[in-house]
Amino acid sequence: MTRPVVIAVDCSTTGSKAVAFDADGVAVAEARRPYPRRSPRPGWQEQDAADWWNATADAIRDVVTSLSSPPMALGITHQRETFVCLDERGEPLRPAILWLDTRAGEQIARLGSPEVHRLSGKPPSTTPSLYKLAWLAEHEPDVLTRTALVLDVHGYLVQKLTGEVATSWACADPMSLLDMATFTWSPQLVTAAGLTLDRLPRLVAPGSVIGTVSGTAAERTGLPAGLPVVAGAGDGQCAGLGAGVLTADRAYLNLGTGLTMGVHSASYRWDRAYRTLASPVAGAYTLESLLSSGALSIAWFRDALSGLTGDDREERLERMAAEVPIGARGLLFLPYLTSAETPYWDADARAAFVGLTDEHGRPEMYRAVLEGLAYEERLSLSLIEQSTGQSVVSLVAMGGASRSRLFTQLLADVLERPVAVAAEVETTALGAAILAAAAVGLEGVKSVEEATGRMTRVAHVRYPDAARGAVYREAARVYAELYPTLRSLFPQLSRLRALSTPQA
Amino acid sequence: MTRPVVIAVDCSTTGSKAVAFDADGVAVAEARRPYPRRSPRPGWQEQDAADWWNATADAIRDVVTSLSSPPMALGITHQRETFVCLDERGEPLRPAILWLDTRAGEQIARLGSPEVHRLSGKPPSTTPSLYKLAWLAEHEPDVLTRTALVLDVHGYLVQKLTGEVATSWACADPMSLLDMATFTWSPQLVTAAGLTLDRLPRLVAPGSVIGTVSGTAAERTGLPAGLPVVAGAGDGQCAGLGAGVLTADRAYLNLGTGLTMGVHSASYRWDRAYRTLASPVAGAYTLESLLSSGALSIAWFRDALSGLTGDDREERLERMAAEVPIGARGLLFLPYLTSAETPYWDADARAAFVGLTDEHGRPEMYRAVLEGLAYEERLSLSLIEQSTGQSVVSLVAMGGASRSRLFTQLLADVLERPVAVAAEVETTALGAAILAAAAVGLEGVKSVEEATGRMTRVAHVRYPDAARGAVYREAARVYAELYPTLRSLFPQLSRLRALSTPQA
Repeated sequence: MTRPVVIAVDCSTTGSKAVAFDADGVAVAEARRPYPRRSPRPGWQEQDAADWWNATADAIRDVVTSLSSPPMALGITHQRETFVCLDERGEPLRPAILWLDTRAGEQIARLGSPEVHRLSGKPPSTTPSLYKLAWLAEHEPDVLTRTALVLDVHGYLVQKLTGEVATSWACADPMSLLDMATFTWSPQLVTAAGLTLDRLPRLVAPGSVIGTVSGTAAERTGLPAGLPVVAGAGDGQCAGLGAGVLTADRAYLNLGTGLTMGVHSASYRWDRAYRTLASPVAGAYTLESLLSSGALSIAWFRDALSGLTGDDREERLERMAAEVPIGARGLLFLPYLTSAETPYWDADARAAFVGLTDEHGRPEMYRAVLEGLAYEERLSLSLIEQSTGQSVVSLVAMGGASRSRLFTQLLADVLERPVAVAAEVETTALGAAILAAAAVGLEGVKSVEEATGRMTRVAHVRYPDAARGAVYREAARVYAELYPTLRSLFPQLSRLRALSTPQA
Repeated sequence: MTRPVVIAVDCSTTGSKAVAFDADGVAVAEARRPYPRRSPRPGWQEQDAADWWNATADAIRDVVTSLSSPPMALGITHQRETFVCLDERGEPLRPAILWLDTRAGEQIARLGSPEVHRLSGKPPSTTPSLYKLAWLAEHEPDVLTRTALVLDVHGYLVQKLTGEVATSWACADPMSLLDMATFTWSPQLVTAAGLTLDRLPRLVAPGSVIGTVSGTAAERTGLPAGLPVVAGAGDGQCAGLGAGVLTADRAYLNLGTGLTMGVHSASYRWDRAYRTLASPVAGAYTLESLLSSGALSIAWFRDALSGLTGDDREERLERMAAEVPIGARGLLFLPYLTSAETPYWDADARAAFVGLTDEHGRPEMYRAVLEGLAYEERLSLSLIEQSTGQSVVSLVAMGGASRSRLFTQLLADVLERPVAVAAEVETTALGAAILAAAAVGLEGVKSVEEATGRMTRVAHVRYPDAARGAVYREAARVYAELYPTLRSLFPQLSRLRALSTPQA
């Protein structure tokens, strides 16, 4: 006999995935469809919204086909800040502009302000849609004039699935157009973006039923017509929920390409130490730090510096780095390969190895990379704690790099707190599934909290070592001075990068 | 028919070499004997003085045996600052203490001062014998009490060869015990070292006949008894002479493990931008900058970071680095792997890569290493020019790394001046041979200047490219801010290195 399931869709930067979870959080079926990303000019990053829908519909169909009974609900999570402009017939007027598109530097410089931060919870940075909409208003005014509707990825999929013009406030909020104190569109921010309120979807609470699957969508996906579609949240917040973080004394550590740390907050607060996001728990907040070159630093070292080849090279690097004394013989790595986000928000910042001696080689440097990431997270954690006045007692790690025994132990030692490793690999989809399960009362579950308790699990826990922690505390103190010390060099290095062009 | 020759001895840190040169500077015979270096405690670096003599005598014998007629004179150059304490019978009381021995940190901190710098021409640093003699006075007072004579390497070999208790002031001066304005032992510095004047050898001018080969020494070496032994100079200054640098408008660039740049000066001056040394040209001075991790940085990258194996890996690295845009895509390397010497004299300083992005790999990093060395030399050159008020028009490169086409062209581009590459590999020995040839009038040569003109040659010249120079000028400007910006971190990183010990 089969147990009832919900399907969660994770429509990400690289593709769309559908996963069916049962009420114990076990993934019983899964399918994925990739789609391309294009960069027609330097810094531009675009996708076709139609690809999101086609990939999602195909992935859902695969999962539904493999199930012996229909799902009870559908939940959605997705890449944040990416948006598409639709005409009055619902057709895209141009390719969607992605969160990692950097075209709007001038608009960020002009429109970004503490007031925008206070209202939206987002310090001015590359990712929010606000600045890219303002770019469109200046560079492609025709597009914006003809735009009848601006949708985030969640809103686009909801429209395709249900016909509703609506999205979750926990999905739209990273666009930087919401008044985060009230979870409503901010007239001030919408105007700054060159938009009007009538061209934005209705906002609903995450975890509420936003609509039901239409006949057309049922035909396309294999889902039953009338199936409840449950409003989700952005992938970062859903991952935190999928890791089981629902209280202010725990933090999640999402060890992906970008590395995020998040805590739950019952009240609205804003600080340069984090982005304030709408929590998947309606009415609450997620305070999230961001290091864009998180696991990217690890991958960069492996590919560009390790000199190793073969599938086991990360393991070989780990074995080598494990032999190096803690503190990497006095070598520090500042992991800002692409930029600095929390707490500095410096687009010019770049990475550095400082303290190199002729006794340092690749094992020391790899260890320094892992340690640098951990020191950065220690800094984030202490700044978040300072801001909230609430101590974080333990953390839950997830994402690709949480598979590394060395890295997770090092995080526990540096953070001086236990770090649990989430059992489920698809924590992001699981977060959306938790919302869907709670909304429809899967197997009698009554709340998001209860669903989270039943559906999330920890694989193992790394406990901190006090002796190592004492050394790391000193190292982290020096690490915290790295960026403030180097800061004045970064704008100059940016100019130097521009000068350093291929030789004729 | 064979032409008359002189023999030059280069008694270095790793072994002793004898080379016979004719009046055109052609090396017609050569022999070498290595000897060990011991480190009985961390930072200690010692040798047996007897090894210097035995290796030198054996090398001379090999060369003499291969010659068809006896040499006309013998010249000596040697590792600087290394000294030995002899008892009244002329026997070493303990192993010799080397220039790179770091035991005397406390003595440097206590005794080093601007006054010592003003008198000796040497900013306080690890290498001068002064501080190590003061260490002996405190830690091995018996040794110093029983010491009848303190000799530098040149003085030790002169005594073995001739029986004279004498050395060249251009050999003794790096010990930091000389009043450099008068080339005499400074009572003040000698007292600070815990010594007395009667226990130091007589000082003679470089290029003068210091004695003649004794009967015993003739028997041991195969040299004719009565052969003139010509007072030499330290290896750094001799290398400059062997590169043909005798005027203030040219500089030598000795691209060895340590990287030195030197110019000639008719008058005594002192500055933290250089060490003031006695010139091999009696009465004049050599102003020399020092980067202890010069070619060491190149070797370190090759061995510890390149991931390449095989004899051709340096060539492969060069080919890769040659493909990288000038300016290494905005990446800078500060090459202080072991410490900073001129102009900062900071024992805590260490190396750094600053400005790393995920577009940087090993080719960019290797290029950044070469460029960092060149920026450092540009800084040295401009500080030397500022101090002397004299422009340097061109440079002569020598030493191992002068074989690199990429590096020497890069030096010309960064320094914005022609860089000639010396033809003779053994420029150090050639410098001592020039002094010996001039002293005995080999083939009628009448002066050091004339001998230098006849005996030195340039293999080829790298000319600067104006377009590349313009980019490098900007990069060098940012480079010059690296150390001042990072300075405050270095003492903290030293403490961190001490904390970072192998795990139990």
